[in-house]
Amino acid sequence: MMAQPAIALGVPLRLLAEAEGVSAAQVIPDQLVGDYRDLATLTRVTEGCAVVTFDHEHVPTEHLHALEDAGVAVRPGPEALVHAQDKIVMREAMARLGAPQPRWAVVASAADVAEFGFPCVLKVSRGGYDGRGVWVVREPADAEEPLAAAERSGVRLLAEELVDFRRELSALVARSPSGQAAAYPVVATTQLDGICHEVIAPAPGLDPDLAGQAQQLALGVAGELGVTGMLAVELFEVDVDGTPGILVNELAMRPHNTGHWSQDGAITSQFENHLRAVLDLPLGSPAPRARWTVMVNILGSAREDVGHLYDGYPHALARDPRLRVHLYGKELRPGRKVGHVNAYGEELDEVLERARHAAGWFRGDLGDESE
Amino acid sequence: MMAQPAIALGVPLRLLAEAEGVSAAQVIPDQLVGDYRDLATLTRVTEGCAVVTFDHEHVPTEHLHALEDAGVAVRPGPEALVHAQDKIVMREAMARLGAPQPRWAVVASAADVAEFGFPCVLKVSRGGYDGRGVWVVREPADAEEPLAAAERSGVRLLAEELVDFRRELSALVARSPSGQAAAYPVVATTQLDGICHEVIAPAPGLDPDLAGQAQQLALGVAGELGVTGMLAVELFEVDVDGTPGILVNELAMRPHNTGHWSQDGAITSQFENHLRAVLDLPLGSPAPRARWTVMVNILGSAREDVGHLYDGYPHALARDPRLRVHLYGKELRPGRKVGHVNAYGEELDEVLERARHAAGWFRGDLGDESE
Repeated sequence: MMAQPAIALGVPLRLLAEAEGVSAAQVIPDQLVGDYRDLATLTRVTEGCAVVTFDHEHVPTEHLHALEDAGVAVRPGPEALVHAQDKIVMREAMARLGAPQPRWAVVASAADVAEFGFPCVLKVSRGGYDGRGVWVVREPADAEEPLAAAERSGVRLLAEELVDFRRELSALVARSPSGQAAAYPVVATTQLDGICHEVIAPAPGLDPDLAGQAQQLALGVAGELGVTGMLAVELFEVDVDGTPGILVNELAMRPHNTGHWSQDGAITSQFENHLRAVLDLPLGSPAPRARWTVMVNILGSAREDVGHLYDGYPHALARDPRLRVHLYGKELRPGRKVGHVNAYGEELDEVLERARHAAGWFRGDLGDESE
Repeated sequence: MMAQPAIALGVPLRLLAEAEGVSAAQVIPDQLVGDYRDLATLTRVTEGCAVVTFDHEHVPTEHLHALEDAGVAVRPGPEALVHAQDKIVMREAMARLGAPQPRWAVVASAADVAEFGFPCVLKVSRGGYDGRGVWVVREPADAEEPLAAAERSGVRLLAEELVDFRRELSALVARSPSGQAAAYPVVATTQLDGICHEVIAPAPGLDPDLAGQAQQLALGVAGELGVTGMLAVELFEVDVDGTPGILVNELAMRPHNTGHWSQDGAITSQFENHLRAVLDLPLGSPAPRARWTVMVNILGSAREDVGHLYDGYPHALARDPRLRVHLYGKELRPGRKVGHVNAYGEELDEVLERARHAAGWFRGDLGDESE
C-alpha cells in the first residue's frame, strides 16, 4: 500500500520480497526475491537506496546495525525499531519514560509465573504477531506451553497483568528525522482472535483530555525513542476508580492496520506520511476528511464456496457507490487478512453498517440473508 | 495513475510500454516494451487479458478491430474510440446526434478554406495532441502550413469556426458495457498554449441548467457511441444573444487531464471509475468530497536551475500540509506535463492560491519573490 503514494510522489521503490508474486511484488517492478534474515541479501538490495524502511519488524536488529555501519540510512533505525521487535525492551523503555503500562515482569520458569500471579498474559519477547506468541494464563498448567515455546525458540518470556480494559485504542503518529511530527486522531479498535478486526476513527465518545494524553504519549514515545516513519501505540482504555485512563499495550513502527482508515479518511494517509517521514520530507496533514471513518478487515473464509474475492465486487460496489475497497492480491486462507474496506460519512451507525456489510459480504459471512 | 486504483482493487495490470522506463513502466511490473502500431505486439501483450484499455487514443483503429475479431475485449471498442481518434468522424457523429457544435467542414484546398471563411481553426483529423495539429487561420496565407502538413501526413483537414467562447468546460462521465453511467461535476478548464493548465471543480458560477445540459450531453454521447470507460467531452461555454450555451469542442475516451482533480476531490477518481467501467464493475460515486477542488499542471521549465522536481518538495509540502502532489516520473523538458497538484477546500480563492503557488514553485516560476 506504500506503492500508491510512492507513485504520486514520484518516489522509486525497490522491494525485497520474501517470495515471488507476494502482494508487494505484484505492484513494484524493481524487486529482489530473498531472505530478509540474510545480511548479504540486505546489503545487495539496499545498495544505492537513499533510505531503507520496512513493512514488518522482523529484520534482525544486528543486520540493521550492520547496514547502518555501512552507511545505509535505516529508518526507523535499529535503536528505535528494537522497541517494536522486543516486547521486554519496549516495557523497559516505557518504564524509563514513565509511560502508563500494565504491571509486567520477565519470567523464565513456572515459579516466576506463579510469583507474578494469576491470571496473567504471557508473551514471547520476539517474533509474536497477530495473536501468535500470546497466551492468557489462568492457572499454573496454562503456563507450560508458553514456557516450552519460549525455550524452543530461544526467546525470553514476558508476563503482563491481564488488563480489564473498556476497549482498545490506537494512537498513530508520523515522525521525521528532523523531528517534525504529526498525530492522527486516536482511534478505537476491535480485535477478534488477536487480529485487528474493526477500527473507528475517531474513537467514539473518547474523552478529549484522554485523546490528548494518548497523542502526547505517542509523540513523546516517538521523540524519546527516535522513531522515524509511522509509530502506532496500541493502548488499553481502562477505568481507574471511575476515571478513564490509558495503558500502553504494544508498539509498531510502520504503517499499521489501525491506520488503514487514513487511506480514505484523512487528508494524508499513513502510507504517504510514512514515506514522507523516512525521506525527511515535510509531513502531510493527518486531519480527518469525514466526521467518521470505519475500517473493517476482510479475512479469508473457511467456506469453500467463497471462491475469489473479486466475486464480491458486483454486489458490494453496487450496494454502496461510496465504499472504498482495498484488496491485497493474496490467496484466500481461513483467517488471513486479505483486504479491508473503508467507509466514511456523517452518521456513525450508517458508516458502521456499510463497512461491516461489505466486509462480511467479501468474507462470505452474510449467506442468504444479505440484501 | 491507473496503477493506484488497480492496486486497491486487486486488479492485475499488464502494460504495453512505448519505451523502457517510461512513467507507467516504472510502476507496473508486468510489462512488454513495444510499438502500439504493431499488430503482432498488440496480439502478444493482450493474450490472456480479460480486458484491454488505453491511456492514449493512438492505437490504429484497424488493429483494434483485428483484436476484437480475435475475441479480445477492447474497451472502449474501436467503433466508439474512432470518435476520439478522428475529429471529422467525431463532427459527423455530433451532427447526427444533434449535439451543439461549432460550424465545421472538411477542407482539402486553399479554395475550400476560403469558402469556409476567415478566421477559422484548421485541425488535422487524426494525430493532433495538446495543441499540435491545430492552427488558427486568419488569412489565406495562414492555411498553407496546415494544408501542407495534412498532405504530408496523409490525413484529412477539418475547418471549424473560431468560437468566441466565455470559457472552456469539461463534462466527464464513466460508462460500463452494461450501460451504467456516472457523471462527474462539470469543471472549468484553462488552457495555455493549447495545453490544459488549470481545472476548477465544479465550474464556478456555472448555470445549473447548463451544467445539467452538459452532463446530459456527455451521458448521451457516451450511450449513443457505446463508450466504455471514461469519456471527456470538452466544451466551449458561449454566449448566444445573452444566453449561455455550450458547443462540443473535443472528445477523449480515457482518464483525462480535466479529471485529475477527482483523485483527491471526488469519492471515486476517474482512474478508478475507468477501471471499474472497462471491467463492467459497478461504478463508484463521482460526487465531490470538497466544495472546491483545483488542479494545476506542473510543466517542465526552460530554466536550467530547476534541476529535479523533487527539489520542490521541502518548500511546497511544508507550506501546505493539505496539498496533494502527483508527479509522473518524467524527465523535465520545457513545456512537458510532468505532474500536477490538487488542492481542495471551502474557499475558492484560497484553494486557487494554494494550487497555483505549488505548481508555480515546482515549475520554478516564482523566483525570489516566493515566501
